Amino acid sequence: MKKKVVLAFSGGLDTSYCVKYLSEDLGYEVHTLTVNTGGFDQAEIKAIEDRAKSLGVASHKTVDETRNYYDKVIRFLIYGNVLKNNTYPLSVSAERMSQALATANYAGALKADAVAHGSTGAGNDQVRFDMILNILVPGIEIITPIRDMKLSREEEISYLKSKGVQMNFDKAMYSINKGIWGTSVGGKETLKSLGMLPEEAWPTQVTKNGTETLKLKFEKGELLEVNDKKFAHPTEAIQYIQSIAGPYGIGRDVHVGDTIIGIKGRVGFEAAAPMVVIKAHHALEKHVLTKWQLSWKDQLAQFYGNWLHEGQYLDPVMRDIEAFLTNTQQHVTGEVHVQLHPYRFQVLGIESGYDLMSSKFGKYGEMNLGWSGDDVKGFSKIFGNQTMIYNQVKAEKEK
Amino acid sequence: MKKKVVLAFSGGLDTSYCVKYLSEDLGYEVHTLTVNTGGFDQAEIKAIEDRAKSLGVASHKTVDETRNYYDKVIRFLIYGNVLKNNTYPLSVSAERMSQALATANYAGALKADAVAHGSTGAGNDQVRFDMILNILVPGIEIITPIRDMKLSREEEISYLKSKGVQMNFDKAMYSINKGIWGTSVGGKETLKSLGMLPEEAWPTQVTKNGTETLKLKFEKGELLEVNDKKFAHPTEAIQYIQSIAGPYGIGRDVHVGDTIIGIKGRVGFEAAAPMVVIKAHHALEKHVLTKWQLSWKDQLAQFYGNWLHEGQYLDPVMRDIEAFLTNTQQHVTGEVHVQLHPYRFQVLGIESGYDLMSSKFGKYGEMNLGWSGDDVKGFSKIFGNQTMIYNQVKAEKEK
Amino acid sequence: MKKKVVLAFSGGLDTSYCVKYLSEDLGYEVHTLTVNTGGFDQAEIKAIEDRAKSLGVASHKTVDETRNYYDKVIRFLIYGNVLKNNTYPLSVSAERMSQALATANYAGALKADAVAHGSTGAGNDQVRFDMILNILVPGIEIITPIRDMKLSREEEISYLKSKGVQMNFDKAMYSINKGIWGTSVGGKETLKSLGMLPEEAWPTQVTKNGTETLKLKFEKGELLEVNDKKFAHPTEAIQYIQSIAGPYGIGRDVHVGDTIIGIKGRVGFEAAAPMVVIKAHHALEKHVLTKWQLSWKDQLAQFYGNWLHEGQYLDPVMRDIEAFLTNTQQHVTGEVHVQLHPYRFQVLGIESGYDLMSSKFGKYGEMNLGWSGDDVKGFSKIFGNQTMIYNQVKAEKEK
Amino acid sequence: MKKKVVLAFSGGLDTSYCVKYLSEDLGYEVHTLTVNTGGFDQAEIKAIEDRAKSLGVASHKTVDETRNYYDKVIRFLIYGNVLKNNTYPLSVSAERMSQALATANYAGALKADAVAHGSTGAGNDQVRFDMILNILVPGIEIITPIRDMKLSREEEISYLKSKGVQMNFDKAMYSINKGIWGTSVGGKETLKSLGMLPEEAWPTQVTKNGTETLKLKFEKGELLEVNDKKFAHPTEAIQYIQSIAGPYGIGRDVHVGDTIIGIKGRVGFEAAAPMVVIKAHHALEKHVLTKWQLSWKDQLAQFYGNWLHEGQYLDPVMRDIEAFLTNTQQHVTGEVHVQLHPYRFQVLGIESGYDLMSSKFGKYGEMNLGWSGDDVKGFSKIFGNQTMIYNQVKAEKEK
Repeated sequence: MKKKVVLAFSGGLDTSYCVKYLSEDLGYEVHTLTVNTGGFDQAEIKAIEDRAKSLGVASHKTVDETRNYYDKVIRFLIYGNVLKNNTYPLSVSAERMSQALATANYAGALKADAVAHGSTGAGNDQVRFDMILNILVPGIEIITPIRDMKLSREEEISYLKSKGVQMNFDKAMYSINKGIWGTSVGGKETLKSLGMLPEEAWPTQVTKNGTETLKLKFEKGELLEVNDKKFAHPTEAIQYIQSIAGPYGIGRDVHVGDTIIGIKGRVGFEAAAPMVVIKAHHALEKHVLTKWQLSWKDQLAQFYGNWLHEGQYLDPVMRDIEAFLTNTQQHVTGEVHVQLHPYRFQVLGIESGYDLMSSKFGKYGEMNLGWSGDDVKGFSKIFGNQTMIYNQVKAEKEK
Repeated sequence: MKKKVVLAFSGGLDTSYCVKYLSEDLGYEVHTLTVNTGGFDQAEIKAIEDRAKSLGVASHKTVDETRNYYDKVIRFLIYGNVLKNNTYPLSVSAERMSQALATANYAGALKADAVAHGSTGAGNDQVRFDMILNILVPGIEIITPIRDMKLSREEEISYLKSKGVQMNFDKAMYSINKGIWGTSVGGKETLKSLGMLPEEAWPTQVTKNGTETLKLKFEKGELLEVNDKKFAHPTEAIQYIQSIAGPYGIGRDVHVGDTIIGIKGRVGFEAAAPMVVIKAHHALEKHVLTKWQLSWKDQLAQFYGNWLHEGQYLDPVMRDIEAFLTNTQQHVTGEVHVQLHPYRFQVLGIESGYDLMSSKFGKYGEMNLGWSGDDVKGFSKIFGNQTMIYNQVKAEKEK
Repeated sequence: MKKKVVLAFSGGLDTSYCVKYLSEDLGYEVHTLTVNTGGFDQAEIKAIEDRAKSLGVASHKTVDETRNYYDKVIRFLIYGNVLKNNTYPLSVSAERMSQALATANYAGALKADAVAHGSTGAGNDQVRFDMILNILVPGIEIITPIRDMKLSREEEISYLKSKGVQMNFDKAMYSINKGIWGTSVGGKETLKSLGMLPEEAWPTQVTKNGTETLKLKFEKGELLEVNDKKFAHPTEAIQYIQSIAGPYGIGRDVHVGDTIIGIKGRVGFEAAAPMVVIKAHHALEKHVLTKWQLSWKDQLAQFYGNWLHEGQYLDPVMRDIEAFLTNTQQHVTGEVHVQLHPYRFQVLGIESGYDLMSSKFGKYGEMNLGWSGDDVKGFSKIFGNQTMIYNQVKAEKEK
Repeated sequence: MKKKVVLAFSGGLDTSYCVKYLSEDLGYEVHTLTVNTGGFDQAEIKAIEDRAKSLGVASHKTVDETRNYYDKVIRFLIYGNVLKNNTYPLSVSAERMSQALATANYAGALKADAVAHGSTGAGNDQVRFDMILNILVPGIEIITPIRDMKLSREEEISYLKSKGVQMNFDKAMYSINKGIWGTSVGGKETLKSLGMLPEEAWPTQVTKNGTETLKLKFEKGELLEVNDKKFAHPTEAIQYIQSIAGPYGIGRDVHVGDTIIGIKGRVGFEAAAPMVVIKAHHALEKHVLTKWQLSWKDQLAQFYGNWLHEGQYLDPVMRDIEAFLTNTQQHVTGEVHVQLHPYRFQVLGIESGYDLMSSKFGKYGEMNLGWSGDDVKGFSKIFGNQTMIYNQVKAEKEK
């Protein structure tokens, strides 16, 4: 009996190669799995399925992980306002984690002997897949032909042709990865340290002019309403914002970061909805949370984002941080107004019953209502007391 | 003999009131001091001096602290890429510290009996002045008439008129505070939680269209050259960038933050040069520093910014953090290309001999050169080892 | 009608003074409250009550907060293994918070016009009481005669004598504060930076020799069983351990720390049960938690302890940290063996079904079972990859 | 011509095996290197050298790294009061780093083709050696026979016998590793989670009774004088303290920690001098540093210790942290008195001209001199202002 392998399948050149290599060279029964994290529409799903079948897989399955991906990961990236290096919403990092988890679970359910993925040897995804698989289906064989054989594009194409595979072998100018939490764009400009992606490289072209206003309503940190329109699940609200803000070219940037394997990587991304949602959420938090809530959220969320990026989603410390973040959201309820412009947006302000900027207690820079000048004088004296003592002790000692 | 008071003087309504009140009601010999942190030009300096004299001060002095302000404070805000709440370059917070230090030193040199400042009772500045004075000239009397008497504008005006003072008593629509590290703008929109400053409120109007490119050259973290133009001191490079980027309306935003006295405050600011310099510097660092250098710099710099904001510049821990930050800058040498557009800018990339994104060692997402697929497989196994063990121990225990 | 004041009452000189001063000099109706946090036995409670009545209070009430104190505070100090400056279990800091909360609640319930406490002007307690009262019963008057009038012992005694009060006015050599989470001991040796409390200063004298073993059983971080003896509530387990370990002189030390008001303070303490419980709990955690759980727990718990020490228990960030800490305790279940000796103890080890030190996966320093030498070679290569690149880029640049 | 290999050589079974295996089976020219980090005396050095020669090495070299080890590593462990998991002074972790660095440098100088070490596959040392070698002599071949062949003791012995090697093949009951910063002791009790090393397992037996006092004099954080005896280098002061405190059985404990490879490890250690020096140094710091200096030192030093433990000494962030730590030591000057007892010691206090616990400014818990009761009242009001506002806003919203 043939051994079973589950292959994480996107329908592209690398994973098409893997189907043939696994079945014909290695003799596996190949079960392809496509995990949709909000980046594929029905036509694309269908095309991927067709490709799998035409390559002769034993079975093909598509799972829609979009909501689950939000519930398990994106939710906490919003609670934590996570932007890696103050820039990148972790679009691909988070999505790959979601795909690896679904792949491991599928392999477990199928009692597969092996799992294959099409990762190269110079990216983060290989580590994310390997780790999740090692942890969730320990002992399972992991097969990574592209990485192991350091295959070039040309070698893959010639191999597939030799197997009679017909597909479009033209190389796309830019490699694109799309999910609900943003789309990455890599290409010749991002392979060097200097250079910006040209206008035509961006998947979403700028088609809107002028300006438009959005009203985001959060309840305990979750986005449930936009412009008074209610949504059944936050993923729908995110997609709605994407449909409005995307054509402004909002949320485009280039991220330079540390890969898990120690090299620096540079990648373009467009993430209109993630950027709008995070900045709106953060603005609301600045009004309703205390100074130290903001400060600790920041520290924990940065670690959470990095550790997720590095494939460590299953470390139980991640659950502990999620408990912290969830607890902070109790008062993160209110509306945030955002104005969209071509290539940029501006948070206009917030409304919340939990707003701590209440003029009942004093107006910043103007009038003190809940305390006196003497209170502040006393405060200043005590607040600087240790440094005053330090300075005098030092002067005494050094004179 | 009359007692001497040093008054931090800006020439506005509040400090004009203080001159009269201190000299005529309290009987002090009033010595006014104006500290220029790069926000006043010669004409403004002259006007302030004239105002002081016309109010009958015993002496007036202007000190230009701009370079010193950079050397002692701004330098470290750049090294640390400090943006409070990921937004605000601490324009006023940093400047006020510099002014308080100069005021305390002047009071010490003059052997003054007292120091006066025009702070209200609902802002941060009162604490900053009080603390620096308590620490550097301990025991000196601190006089704050506006705060202590909770004076309204109208009361001040009527008092000054009764003393025969003639000046323009019209209230500016917006209160503006300008220094080399940015200009704050407060007004009716910022007193509430919702509302954006109107176009006319911004001191620098948008007069440029199109786009333009800047090349910033850093050496060990310091900005010494822009567009191949060399500058004697980084403050000049900053002012040069401001003159180019300001008219694009770059660096405008609204900051919501925690005041030292516990209330939330909201303020607009425009800070074209600070934003361009910080983002360019940070981009360079992402290429030349290691992952943990970036991470620890972030944490320490956030604390540094907050502690500076809270008036604690003289705590010796600030010197320790400066030693850390300075040490990290040894390789922060290279050029950063930035493109300016109306209301926004984009970092295009960097060039540096210390760039760790070197294709000699592997191309992100493409090809591994310094290691094999097996190396990464081993890495993934060990990197996830503890969580794998955790999962199995848990499954065993709970089955 | 007389105004009502609630006085936090311990029966000592300072608070006895306050009763007379508040009722006779200020004309208040005085309601004394004694909050027991596990430090008073029935005889002491009775003596305090008698003293209050003999001083002529309008009413006296005793509340036993011991369990509540554990549920709201101590529990989290154990979860977090909190030792301030790696030394002090926060015996008094935590207890005072508990007393201030109970006092504020009582004042609210009684609709008192004022609250009085006997704090001096040079300690932490004044701030803790003031803050909790300002927050929970905002606007209530706070009266602190000893602090405000800087009264000396002699002045208090002579005043009380003049009012006909008869009590033992002899000064105790050492000032003692006892609660379930430890006893502080202050006296002449601790007022200077050098000097250890003499043997006779310690409230619990050393009466045990030899050695004895304890077995502490934790379930989800809570101590419920000692030496196979079950307890209805962790406070009883703590008191049981105290009764066994106390007479060994275990847990004695001197703490030097930063007060809230900026001066350094030094105080002796004996805390046998807290030290044994914390060290045993921590030992268990080292076996069942992952590296990053231990690391983040440490950081958050240190902040939690400091912020509690500074009277900020009601900041909502404290609830967020409690949510984190509680979540980490899910597997902190098992038994810890501890050996007691005069003046010291040794954790002997642990037993737990969640122990990650399982020889199934490899024996430290001996044999690798779940991975190969090549896996570690690969790991080492990738783990040091960035620093290798850094070193080579630097050498290239600098040659 | 034969290829050259440098072998890190201790003279034990594993590295003796390596000599024969490398020279006879693999055909290398074997150059043994023994790095003394303060753990070997002259007789032991001589014995190791003799063993190397009797095994037929091409050359043998001993380098004394003791001072260098202090200058590069231990100094910062003292500045940072580094105790891993609040317990372990990193005795072996730090030492191995020092040995790996010396080995890499020697291999570079000899232009060796390969480096070999005798690490097993289940410990930390393998990673430390691999990483330092990969970084400092990139591309050099690393040979680890014991790890790669998973050799048992018996296999090694029988191989050596077959080669005619005569040495004492008896297994020591406990495996001991000695250096100036402590001695580790592993054996059957430490391989499980429960069990303490027996008295006879400890290399330094307890031969002292009674008590004795030490006076440690630090200057800018460095220990230069003990009991008024001056030393040329801090390593001599450390060894002097070890000679006095060791025979009391001070500094014995068991450490449970996370290995770099993800498993938990447990090891006994005795480290009298490191524990006395760190605790004395820390006591001094509590008196002379400000609250935030202590807090940040702690955080950075914990990371420093962990990162060192994990073999990442060459990450440039370590140099940045060293710059921070060094800067904090400017006032860490003074004398610390310590009392030694069998199995324990007590810090008695400190004397320093930089002591911030100066009664000039107020006596903790007794009298306020530099501020008034009203100052503290004002402080408490402002310090709790945000939480007061939070509580009222919440009550308002939720009523």
